[in-house]
Amino acid sequence: MFSQLVVWLLAVSAVHAAFDIKTWRMNREYENYLQKRAYYLAEEEDRSVGSDIVLTAKEEIVNERLMALKTAELEAGLENPSQFIPWNHFFDVLERINSSEIFHIIQRMPKGGILHAHDTAICSTDYVVSLTYEPNLWQCTNPTTGALEFRFSREAPPSTETCQWTLVSEERARQGEEQYNSQLRSQLSLYNTDPINHNRDVDSIWREFMGLFGVNFGLLTYAPVWKAYYKNYLKEMLLDGVQYLELRGTLPQLYDLDGKTYNEEENLQIYLDATREFKQENPTFIGAKFIYAPVRVVDDAGIKTLMAKVTQLHERFPTFLAGFDLVGQEDKGRPLIDFSQEILQLPDTINFYFHSGETNWNGLTDINLIDAVLLGSKRLGHGYAIFKHTKVLKMVKREKIAIEVCPISNQVLRLVSDMRNHPGSILLANKEYPVVISSDDPSFWEATPLSHDFYMAFMGLASSRQDLRMLKQLAINSIKYSAMTPMEKLDAMKLWEEQWKKFIDELAA
Amino acid sequence: MFSQLVVWLLAVSAVHAAFDIKTWRMNREYENYLQKRAYYLAEEEDRSVGSDIVLTAKEEIVNERLMALKTAELEAGLENPSQFIPWNHFFDVLERINSSEIFHIIQRMPKGGILHAHDTAICSTDYVVSLTYEPNLWQCTNPTTGALEFRFSREAPPSTETCQWTLVSEERARQGEEQYNSQLRSQLSLYNTDPINHNRDVDSIWREFMGLFGVNFGLLTYAPVWKAYYKNYLKEMLLDGVQYLELRGTLPQLYDLDGKTYNEEENLQIYLDATREFKQENPTFIGAKFIYAPVRVVDDAGIKTLMAKVTQLHERFPTFLAGFDLVGQEDKGRPLIDFSQEILQLPDTINFYFHSGETNWNGLTDINLIDAVLLGSKRLGHGYAIFKHTKVLKMVKREKIAIEVCPISNQVLRLVSDMRNHPGSILLANKEYPVVISSDDPSFWEATPLSHDFYMAFMGLASSRQDLRMLKQLAINSIKYSAMTPMEKLDAMKLWEEQWKKFIDELAA
Repeated sequence: MFSQLVVWLLAVSAVHAAFDIKTWRMNREYENYLQKRAYYLAEEEDRSVGSDIVLTAKEEIVNERLMALKTAELEAGLENPSQFIPWNHFFDVLERINSSEIFHIIQRMPKGGILHAHDTAICSTDYVVSLTYEPNLWQCTNPTTGALEFRFSREAPPSTETCQWTLVSEERARQGEEQYNSQLRSQLSLYNTDPINHNRDVDSIWREFMGLFGVNFGLLTYAPVWKAYYKNYLKEMLLDGVQYLELRGTLPQLYDLDGKTYNEEENLQIYLDATREFKQENPTFIGAKFIYAPVRVVDDAGIKTLMAKVTQLHERFPTFLAGFDLVGQEDKGRPLIDFSQEILQLPDTINFYFHSGETNWNGLTDINLIDAVLLGSKRLGHGYAIFKHTKVLKMVKREKIAIEVCPISNQVLRLVSDMRNHPGSILLANKEYPVVISSDDPSFWEATPLSHDFYMAFMGLASSRQDLRMLKQLAINSIKYSAMTPMEKLDAMKLWEEQWKKFIDELAA
Repeated sequence: MFSQLVVWLLAVSAVHAAFDIKTWRMNREYENYLQKRAYYLAEEEDRSVGSDIVLTAKEEIVNERLMALKTAELEAGLENPSQFIPWNHFFDVLERINSSEIFHIIQRMPKGGILHAHDTAICSTDYVVSLTYEPNLWQCTNPTTGALEFRFSREAPPSTETCQWTLVSEERARQGEEQYNSQLRSQLSLYNTDPINHNRDVDSIWREFMGLFGVNFGLLTYAPVWKAYYKNYLKEMLLDGVQYLELRGTLPQLYDLDGKTYNEEENLQIYLDATREFKQENPTFIGAKFIYAPVRVVDDAGIKTLMAKVTQLHERFPTFLAGFDLVGQEDKGRPLIDFSQEILQLPDTINFYFHSGETNWNGLTDINLIDAVLLGSKRLGHGYAIFKHTKVLKMVKREKIAIEVCPISNQVLRLVSDMRNHPGSILLANKEYPVVISSDDPSFWEATPLSHDFYMAFMGLASSRQDLRMLKQLAINSIKYSAMTPMEKLDAMKLWEEQWKKFIDELAA
């Protein structure tokens, strides 16, 4: 009886022990799994842009608020994907962005500098419309295309078959201000509230886009307006939390009412003067530099002329002129290889910031990326196609060639639809790739100087986990990868940090 | 006079020499540049998928023809981007693909195996329609959704409020064959010729997509049809130049006219029998394996049931059952982490082929990628979001975890619009990433078993320079990264190589 009890007890405890060991093993294996998983996730986070930043206590407060808002938008998006802003075309969600709290925080955030923006495509449409109230402004409408043209003149400029000049003031009075301004706006930006035509391709939208540069050309190249437009942009930029600018420009010939014309040097001098004035007037402004970026559609003789011009400008403006680039639709203009023999002859002190890979043509247009890195480009304009080029990827990491990502531009100009497919999302996942966010031609899609693109980077390109640290890093990157000298960068960082501290203090309060 | 002449001569030759040295230096620098450029381009090509292949003389002939066609299509695309097929939604260009010579070559090409396709979404719509001519087939139409349901039965199945059964033969006679079949087709695939609604998001299209599985369910789960459908697919596959299959399936309960039902084991046995029969009948057929892939929408008790089931199936079908996966929209179903504790308890001999990262939700749904690699997944289903995950990228390279890229599926199910933005293009640029091309649910977009996806990989994902070598490598990859044993792979390669040789001989002739 007793021995039976012992046997029974032993059997029961053996079963128990076996069961416990099995459970213990299972739990331990799962715990190991969870630990490894946490480590993998942490490794990815450690590699992402922003991970080098350690937030202060106050920054943590701001971050919590920001991330609560981001998480709520993501959760709503998961419930209703078509309502998620970065899934949509920018025009369909512009008003929603403008009224979102995340956007308001980003607007107030000091974002550093803008390293990729084009001369006549930067000011708000409101401001451009206001310029048409200036006296002595004439207009004509191309009877075939319906495109407006402007010209400042004391008297009516000579009319041609395609151009019958009338005074803007009279035209506006005739049509009524509201009607006039509304059709004017429609020619100053691509933005409109019509349903997006998803069947338009990159060439079709580029044609319309290029047309905009024609409409505002005569208006902006009037020398006094040229300077005012630029200074107004610096003001808009500063209000948008941006303290530094590297402007790409074609330096078109300017004119005034007295028949004087202004060549490239004179044009650049106006930029320089305006920059100095603005710096005097605005102590928080870091400064600006200029990248001479003529149009890539040019013949062989034209290439030589451009090289002579950039050399001359470089000699005359050795610090204000940051370097050289070529603009226009890469798919249509001449590739970098056509310029490379001449570019190699330029003085070593001229830096390059080449547009390259702003295309979906894999192995065709995007070969510009290869030439850009080979020619020693300091940064890549767009670099949209970069992940299709393994050698270029190696080079940008090794040589710290920053990629100027312009999310909204790439969407509006039809490279990508859902912003989450933008290759910038891959760049932001890996801090080895030097990346800056920029805005390209914000005037033409009625975006702010930088906040809308920062919004898209934060909500559409970044991981759900990327937070204030990423935004802060992007601001720092814009100084780090700028054309400023090391000393200038130190001063710039100081000016930016002051603003950053103010921003954090205000928001944490 | 003489001395003047000498001075003049010396001066002239000095100028000449200086000029010559300068020209010589310029030329030399440019030659260096071109050499380095050629090297960079070659380095990229050497790294791309296909570069390990050396073509035979006959293959070169086929390649030249193929590349001439590809180049012509690319050139036409550059001229008119909206006419470029991979830019368009698949439905808008299906007929153009079907009549293109590139597609005809790809159809004839032996493409190896299909490693990612789902049980009831594989046969041509014509074939599925033909099944509805079988006797004893009943249908009802859901009065709310309008969705059809089918059921084989000797007598009318019991009607319910939402289901009034009528004989398909009577219904077809009543409506007229053309009208009946046309509305039937519209419920069997997403394909239609209506203009694409670009405002539909991933959830909306997934709802419709999931609905299709419901429409054909009662039709296909009739045991005799179940087997016939599978065998017909093997036939369609072989005709499409595909010799091997790894089919994912949910193993639903089957039924017959005598009231017998068939459980998972019996279902899988039907697959196995059919595979053996087909292999007997078709000596060029390599074989097939099965991946048990139940739906991921399941409760905790359901998870345990699934684990018991896969273990049981694995014991009974140790070689035919290649492994385990979970299906359904990742954004909506349970994430892998919910299954992981149970998965860790499965026998080590069960392999995994997890769907992961079929999403645009960065840092949310796509965390499944982390769990997939941690759980030891042999391949990744889709892996669309992989480039947002640096640790996963490292793992797939190190562990040779193949990514099953399904380009058309991802476009139709609204992850991407322009095919050139598909991350598969990055995978194809770098042979370190193991990649296979597959078709997912070709029945539901009226695609061939594999040729349409190969076409998209070749024209939309690959570089303009990637050629027959890439296609050949993709065929080889489908065997290399299959679940076959090393010995099976040797046999498979032999059978594939015979077909490849035949293909090359015929086309080179």
